[in-house]
Amino acid sequence: MDRRNMTMLCDFYELTMGNGYFKYGYADHITYFDVFFRSVPDGGGFAIAAGLEQIVEYIKNLHFSAEDIAYLRERKMFDEGFLRYLADFRFTGDIYAVPEGTPIFPREPILTVRAPAIQAQLIETFLLLTINHQSLIATKANRVVRAAEGRTVLEFGSRRAQGADGAILGARAAYIGGCAGTACTISDELFGVPAGGTMAHSWVQMFPTQYEAFKTYCEVYPDNPTLLVDTYNTLKSGVPDAIRAFNEVLKPRGLTKCGIRLDSGDMTYLTKKARKMLDDAGWESCKISVSNSLDEYIIRDLLQQGAQIDMFGVGERLITARSEPVFGGVYKLAAIEGEDGTVIPRIKISENTAKITNPHFKKLYRFYGNDTGKAIADYLCVYDETVDDTKDLTIFDPEATWKEKTVYNFTAKELQVPIFKNGELVYKLPTLKEIQSYCREQVDTLWDEVKRFDNPHTYYVDLSKKLWGIRYQLLKEKSK
Amino acid sequence: MDRRNMTMLCDFYELTMGNGYFKYGYADHITYFDVFFRSVPDGGGFAIAAGLEQIVEYIKNLHFSAEDIAYLRERKMFDEGFLRYLADFRFTGDIYAVPEGTPIFPREPILTVRAPAIQAQLIETFLLLTINHQSLIATKANRVVRAAEGRTVLEFGSRRAQGADGAILGARAAYIGGCAGTACTISDELFGVPAGGTMAHSWVQMFPTQYEAFKTYCEVYPDNPTLLVDTYNTLKSGVPDAIRAFNEVLKPRGLTKCGIRLDSGDMTYLTKKARKMLDDAGWESCKISVSNSLDEYIIRDLLQQGAQIDMFGVGERLITARSEPVFGGVYKLAAIEGEDGTVIPRIKISENTAKITNPHFKKLYRFYGNDTGKAIADYLCVYDETVDDTKDLTIFDPEATWKEKTVYNFTAKELQVPIFKNGELVYKLPTLKEIQSYCREQVDTLWDEVKRFDNPHTYYVDLSKKLWGIRYQLLKEKSK
Repeated sequence: MDRRNMTMLCDFYELTMGNGYFKYGYADHITYFDVFFRSVPDGGGFAIAAGLEQIVEYIKNLHFSAEDIAYLRERKMFDEGFLRYLADFRFTGDIYAVPEGTPIFPREPILTVRAPAIQAQLIETFLLLTINHQSLIATKANRVVRAAEGRTVLEFGSRRAQGADGAILGARAAYIGGCAGTACTISDELFGVPAGGTMAHSWVQMFPTQYEAFKTYCEVYPDNPTLLVDTYNTLKSGVPDAIRAFNEVLKPRGLTKCGIRLDSGDMTYLTKKARKMLDDAGWESCKISVSNSLDEYIIRDLLQQGAQIDMFGVGERLITARSEPVFGGVYKLAAIEGEDGTVIPRIKISENTAKITNPHFKKLYRFYGNDTGKAIADYLCVYDETVDDTKDLTIFDPEATWKEKTVYNFTAKELQVPIFKNGELVYKLPTLKEIQSYCREQVDTLWDEVKRFDNPHTYYVDLSKKLWGIRYQLLKEKSK
Repeated sequence: MDRRNMTMLCDFYELTMGNGYFKYGYADHITYFDVFFRSVPDGGGFAIAAGLEQIVEYIKNLHFSAEDIAYLRERKMFDEGFLRYLADFRFTGDIYAVPEGTPIFPREPILTVRAPAIQAQLIETFLLLTINHQSLIATKANRVVRAAEGRTVLEFGSRRAQGADGAILGARAAYIGGCAGTACTISDELFGVPAGGTMAHSWVQMFPTQYEAFKTYCEVYPDNPTLLVDTYNTLKSGVPDAIRAFNEVLKPRGLTKCGIRLDSGDMTYLTKKARKMLDDAGWESCKISVSNSLDEYIIRDLLQQGAQIDMFGVGERLITARSEPVFGGVYKLAAIEGEDGTVIPRIKISENTAKITNPHFKKLYRFYGNDTGKAIADYLCVYDETVDDTKDLTIFDPEATWKEKTVYNFTAKELQVPIFKNGELVYKLPTLKEIQSYCREQVDTLWDEVKRFDNPHTYYVDLSKKLWGIRYQLLKEKSK
């Protein structure tokens, strides 16, 4: 349904470079670009990949309209031949990526593009913003959901999102990360993220009394009404009015499913008191939900303090990933192809060694222990290498090469799968529900030490001996 | 060009409440809602209003498609009468708002809706997310631009934005706040935000040598090439290769406009050294731009340390307002209309006194001193009051009512202007350039003390005696 053409959502330099490649005869030179990130937001131990479905839509729809070409011509800096090239533009390359919902780690390629230079360059901005946005929110949601220890977490942040896509696709990413649903109606309609919601304070204010507001709501929605009890005074009037409405409307009909929601005040104190008032009135079935500036740390604290909460509505701190609102995915040239098809590795140097890239067209493996089912390490090798997991394998820390480890009794799984081949979609997109399940299963393969919120154990992402050697050689050459 | 129908981008509770109002006979009850915010991001002294143009588009396009109705019917909780009502839905109310680019302060209504309950409720989510997003970015951009003290600031953050709208409309909002342009091509095509850009590291890596990459770029774009000089080593090879390319390609043609860009390393040290190298080579005309994790504080520090910078490209910290990525605008019921047309004020209480609302349909004035041209105070009164600025006026602090101040020789200007009347657009949208100019002029009316980055002077937003009295009375009643 959302079929806007996002081809022009590119950094202007993609076009100036494209025009340059075109004029210089580089248009058809094959290039390899990797998307990877350098550090996990919030100091976490892993991130969750998300956004691939929107990238697939984007690639399928890539084209320049006549208006786009006219706009570019007016800029008076592009060759007419290049503009004709753009008028016929479509993506003809290959894309490999880790499936959505995969736990990912710094410095490993989560998406790889093999395409003619102009094409590979043009798609940089949209690919990055999509992966950066959705992986950011999926990662944050996964933290929040883990903090809730099995209780329901709903995404409630549309109104504080950074733009419409921030709300709509943010709800999608939050669902991948483990949220049970959203308040955002269109995310349900478009993507099947279950949407729900009951009332705002304005509903309560609209009626002559709070009791009338609650009673009316129960009459309209007797099946499972959730009443917002903090408009005036939660314990003095909110909870008592709710109980009265439940007694008068639900009880005579034998209905028991209902809930109250608190959106302000001290959640531990108020939910304990409210729980007792509800239980004393015979409404043990009434669920309590809360929704005021929550995040993973506040949820953990509330539960440790014995707050009586069944459901968390998480808003601005999830939909903007407020504590660290940037996922720093980058898009770097890893190799070019010679005219004979040889893959020639390329590297980007930096004074900051953490910013030096892993060159070459690569394979990314994850090793799982056959006895535990747990993920042991990720392993990057050159595209023409293959891991034989029937034999022991000695891996080493790429930054401290003397630190070796031998893995045995393991299964090696390639993490990237082909998405596009020669411009054709070759990947069957999973349903959103399947992605959510896959994410939960894959997070379960991580050791608890990697899942700690603070100071997690650093998961290994190692290089093959061959890849390490190529990287070292390039570093020596380029640093001269 | 962006005409997606965003009607379904609403919190689900807008629909459950709407259905309730419909069934209860409240559909046509007239309500008044205010949009306001409670605190300025980053501890600043004021914010910049932005997003109104997108709200106008949204209101004009409001309608439910047949698919939307079908989706809602499937949820099996909405009355058929209500669904028929939605099928014919359009906005018939009034909207008043401060123009985009206006400096705004906490607790004053920046937008007011007067409309039948269901309509006023339904538009809440989209109005809030639009104002929250664009005001957030315009406010941040204004801080960054003020830190640059007249040097050019460009928005470079698309790839780190929270979704496509985050990039596209973020660039628009950044321009309102004072940025000179963006890297985001589509923001230029759609909104006329000047887009520009030259090369990424990949351009340099694509060629056999850095010098060839620079020379080729100068040949393709001899009029004003900007070369990225930090791919390998900024001072050892980057700047020397750039000078060599300028000498060989530009000099023979008598061209002098050119630039270099640094994207890593110590900006103060490197730009001072680079400036000297360029000047010694006769390239005083070469501009230096920098672009690595900048924000208002880093820019201020760089300039204090004597960095030689002509242009700042600001990315993720601007496009996500990283230091405080949420603008906390809220939408609160302020009044309802009785059947005789009487306006009946409504209040929302909170244990946190800062969260108590200003009730009633109100007028918002800004007082400017006739001698200085500076803004003295903002003043909220009941809709039927009028300020006579030919006479002295005594105003008081609404929280410390004994603190009085008499204003004289001033001009009172109403800040909200009519946008929609009875569903018809009555506002002529200014151009984006006009909005940017208006913003700059209005920020100039603020005293420097209000513009400080940290611990600014608190600007007065006072209530009329009548409004204060009504609020006090409601507080007493509802706290019983």
